[in-house]
Amino acid sequence: MILGRVVGNVVSTHKDPGASDIKLLLVDRVSENGTGRGDYLVAMDSVGAGPGDIVMIVAGSSARMTEMTTGRPCDAAAMAIVDMVEKDGQIVYDKSGKT
Amino acid sequence: MILGRVVGNVVSTHKDPGASDIKLLLVDRVSENGTGRGDYLVAMDSVGAGPGDIVMIVAGSSARMTEMTTGRPCDAAAMAIVDMVEKDGQIVYDKSGKT
Amino acid sequence: MILGRVVGNVVSTHKDPGASDIKLLLVDRVSENGTGRGDYLVAMDSVGAGPGDIVMIVAGSSARMTEMTTGRPCDAAAMAIVDMVEKDGQIVYDKSGKT
Amino acid sequence: MILGRVVGNVVSTHKDPGASDIKLLLVDRVSENGTGRGDYLVAMDSVGAGPGDIVMIVAGSSARMTEMTTGRPCDAAAMAIVDMVEKDGQIVYDKSGKT
Amino acid sequence: MILGRVVGNVVSTHKDPGASDIKLLLVDRVSENGTGRGDYLVAMDSVGAGPGDIVMIVAGSSARMTEMTTGRPCDAAAMAIVDMVEKDGQIVYDKSGKT
Repeated sequence: MILGRVVGNVVSTHKDPGASDIKLLLVDRVSENGTGRGDYLVAMDSVGAGPGDIVMIVAGSSARMTEMTTGRPCDAAAMAIVDMVEKDGQIVYDKSGKT
Repeated sequence: MILGRVVGNVVSTHKDPGASDIKLLLVDRVSENGTGRGDYLVAMDSVGAGPGDIVMIVAGSSARMTEMTTGRPCDAAAMAIVDMVEKDGQIVYDKSGKT
Repeated sequence: MILGRVVGNVVSTHKDPGASDIKLLLVDRVSENGTGRGDYLVAMDSVGAGPGDIVMIVAGSSARMTEMTTGRPCDAAAMAIVDMVEKDGQIVYDKSGKT
Repeated sequence: MILGRVVGNVVSTHKDPGASDIKLLLVDRVSENGTGRGDYLVAMDSVGAGPGDIVMIVAGSSARMTEMTTGRPCDAAAMAIVDMVEKDGQIVYDKSGKT
Repeated sequence: MILGRVVGNVVSTHKDPGASDIKLLLVDRVSENGTGRGDYLVAMDSVGAGPGDIVMIVAGSSARMTEMTTGRPCDAAAMAIVDMVEKDGQIVYDKSGKT
């Protein structure tokens, strides 16, 4: 899985039925400490993520294994909101801001 | 999913039956604001997209999960025509031209 | 799907049964106008492609969705011989040579 | 499969049920001799790996084929702890430290 | 599929049951004429490949379609030992050494 920050969303009215009733998040890939890369992708929201959240993205066929994405034409799903990333014994990202 | 602009199409008469009766779009990958990258791929059209449209592309096995692509040898499908992309609270792409 | 030019083939006598009785094409990835990239891959032939043909390659699990590749250990299949590529209203590749 | 070193973990309370009760490892991709690349991914732990371990990561749909990951929204699983890597007749990585 | 040279192997005692009783090959990706790239991956051996052999690697879910890898957590399998690669009418790799 990769980490990304929710930075916006994508709006579409004309789409395959499998993309109905689910939020399409614009996500910026981030490094392990939450730094953005300017490398954007669109992920279906499986977890109620909001702007600024660091999320864990599952890709490929496994993106269809969340409760919200079963059977959908979905190759990327935000499946977890990240609270903390620990690396080499240090907290390198903390959602509460206490890094 | 990734975003791309429909820039043309691919014509083939000699092909696997699974590629019959569906449009093969030439798509240029675009950044989140619709800027082209000159990085082309071919996607099956699941949504009736036309030249110039920014579409959302679903890849991998999930490309076979749209109504139009079930059971086809398809690893990329244009599954939604994008109306708007919002990033950091700004509209960075608007199909109607009002960016 | 991506585009590639058939430039040769791969011969193997010692192989998994799933690779028997199907041609293994050496394919050079090409840009949308047929220019080679020197980036080679091996694809199973699902369409009777010959040397010099520009083919459409389907990758991943969808490579097993052609008539010739069902159930095979195949992650790339040449599924269509390309006649023409149209981009921005221009024919940028024409098999008959009239570009 | 690729090789990676377990360097930390990711904590999330708000997540898809399929990510419950399994450890989310922060993994640094390594070269064949165990040298880190600073290219991080998150993998579900299928093998009880600990900090510093070099693990073998299986990706894509096959990441769901371990005992621990069946049916989960998982595209990367640490499925083996590496004891030794032999290359060109030399041991280039040895967990016990005797390289 | 891609081509690679078997340059060694990976040893693991602590692993998912699905990785038992199968050889884990260290493979160097090679160009079409067999030149190494120093870009290593681990592949399960489905064909009895030995050191120095150029093999054809199948990746993704299709890596589970060989006789040896069915149901295993395997995203890369060596499925064929390459005898010869022909490119533009020339033999660019010949296992017997007569290039």
